[in-house]
Amino acid sequence: MVERVVAVVGATGAVGREMLRTLEKRRFPLSRLVALASPRSAGVELPFAGGKVQVQALGPGSFRGVDVALFSAGAGPSREWAPVAAAAGAVVIDNSSAWRMDDQVPLVVPEVNPGAAANRPRGIIANPNCSTIQLVVALQPLHAAAHIEHIVVSTYQATSGKGHAAVEELHAQLRQLAAGESPTPSVFPGQIALNVISDWKPGRDGYSEEELKMVNETRKILGDASIGVTPTCVRVPVETGHSESVHVRFREPMSAARAKELLRSAPGVELREGDYAPGGEPQPLQAAGRDAVFVGRVRDDLCVPNAINLWVVADNLLKGAALNAVQIAEIL
Amino acid sequence: MVERVVAVVGATGAVGREMLRTLEKRRFPLSRLVALASPRSAGVELPFAGGKVQVQALGPGSFRGVDVALFSAGAGPSREWAPVAAAAGAVVIDNSSAWRMDDQVPLVVPEVNPGAAANRPRGIIANPNCSTIQLVVALQPLHAAAHIEHIVVSTYQATSGKGHAAVEELHAQLRQLAAGESPTPSVFPGQIALNVISDWKPGRDGYSEEELKMVNETRKILGDASIGVTPTCVRVPVETGHSESVHVRFREPMSAARAKELLRSAPGVELREGDYAPGGEPQPLQAAGRDAVFVGRVRDDLCVPNAINLWVVADNLLKGAALNAVQIAEIL
Repeated sequence: MVERVVAVVGATGAVGREMLRTLEKRRFPLSRLVALASPRSAGVELPFAGGKVQVQALGPGSFRGVDVALFSAGAGPSREWAPVAAAAGAVVIDNSSAWRMDDQVPLVVPEVNPGAAANRPRGIIANPNCSTIQLVVALQPLHAAAHIEHIVVSTYQATSGKGHAAVEELHAQLRQLAAGESPTPSVFPGQIALNVISDWKPGRDGYSEEELKMVNETRKILGDASIGVTPTCVRVPVETGHSESVHVRFREPMSAARAKELLRSAPGVELREGDYAPGGEPQPLQAAGRDAVFVGRVRDDLCVPNAINLWVVADNLLKGAALNAVQIAEIL
Repeated sequence: MVERVVAVVGATGAVGREMLRTLEKRRFPLSRLVALASPRSAGVELPFAGGKVQVQALGPGSFRGVDVALFSAGAGPSREWAPVAAAAGAVVIDNSSAWRMDDQVPLVVPEVNPGAAANRPRGIIANPNCSTIQLVVALQPLHAAAHIEHIVVSTYQATSGKGHAAVEELHAQLRQLAAGESPTPSVFPGQIALNVISDWKPGRDGYSEEELKMVNETRKILGDASIGVTPTCVRVPVETGHSESVHVRFREPMSAARAKELLRSAPGVELREGDYAPGGEPQPLQAAGRDAVFVGRVRDDLCVPNAINLWVVADNLLKGAALNAVQIAEIL
């Protein structure tokens, strides 16, 4: 097996740490690991493979000899540094939104469109948004069988999708409430503990940026710009694990029975058929720390022909980010 | 103003207590208040109108002289005692699911179908399910203008919809987690703190009982059995305030601009148009304790013509239960 030099950019962030754990857990063939972050985090030691790895400040010379650079440092740093890494000869796998809709950059979910990774004129492969990854893993086998016409999806997204600070804010607010204090929001535009907050970063036409990502990325990954997507993105007081309520209408015949048959053998999917047994439906708390995309409550629509409804849950830091990126590195 | 003798059955429950507070707050013309509950709760004193009211055990003689009996004691007691109250001459307004789909019982939301309350051959009027009430208050003005063809609704329901014990379980679990203990679920089929749980009480065809209520009650209240409803009901770790992500397709022309125009003057609706201003969208924490149904994020669908999407939030104990019941009593 060819061993690779792998750099993780943004190694101290929530997803960066998961990338290290995922490389270790999957025994990725590494000859060397380079942990990179902003100068502020230089010198920090992160646990890795029973030892420690020291974080280095990201700079022009950081990518010398690097084969694969996993980026999870936000869109700004990705726009600046991904071309630098690619010019130095590394294949960049970027977790930010910076390059996802660039025509010259493939957007890859290994269970769905692995072939797209080979065509990367910029030397950059984009890792999709967390909410999109779990949606397309669940829907691709159904789309291949009956062509999706329209998806209505409402999300129940965990705070960790907004990073460490958002998770800390949730826990701090729970402590404040327990002490009888009034929580003061900072990351979220309102108290997130014991509350639900509809997505607030504006995109266009009344849709949020996150919602438009789901529309555009779903079409690009499934390779079909005719698919209609109606998204509503919402944050809930969960630490890790995104849930999605999904209504899908197909152009050709489809039923819950047929969908279950297809999902039973779908790559990356764990189908839950124990509906209405206690705990039979996927829950984010159970999905956290797991690799699979959990699909449950697969049922025929009550009124629309060739339409089904399902409930899709996955760990947003793993399959929604770090795991998907490492899986891309594995298929290179 | 004619003063009435009002009985509240299930006065010690979460909704029963809200009924007392609502009667007081709205200065309902009362000549006497009778608080009824199971023998177990007899003698309990509840605060009312600056004083106290003592709970009496529900029995065959409880309804003598009672004009209006507000029931919130669950479906079993309603089936048994509502006919007793009606036979004694009281008009029963029942908050349980026991009578809602009975052809001889009107299902009433005063902003939507007040006229239905007058035709009550059994002497019983049913109060709809919380999730349905806020949905039809938001949609009725739009249905009147353009006829709804299909609704896809995903709920984010508060624990208080399952009663006191469910709210206590949420808070107990938050305390247990803060103390480093493992929460043990009892009301919910899994930990509800920091988690999301899809509705678990089976109905039919893979839909839960709660979901089927939304289908059947929406059609009955709007008086149109041809309306398609695709529901997904989910519990979130919120104390009070249900939220709903709603996609609606109309038979006739409809747009977000027209919908906002209609909703601005709709009875019982508070339209939020500050999308993407911090806190501009309705949140359950802000809706708790308020009478209105809050509607926000009204936007044209991105792909389906004559379809819009909206975000509907209301206090499930008030407009979703106690307030709607008292409003019915007011229109008698």
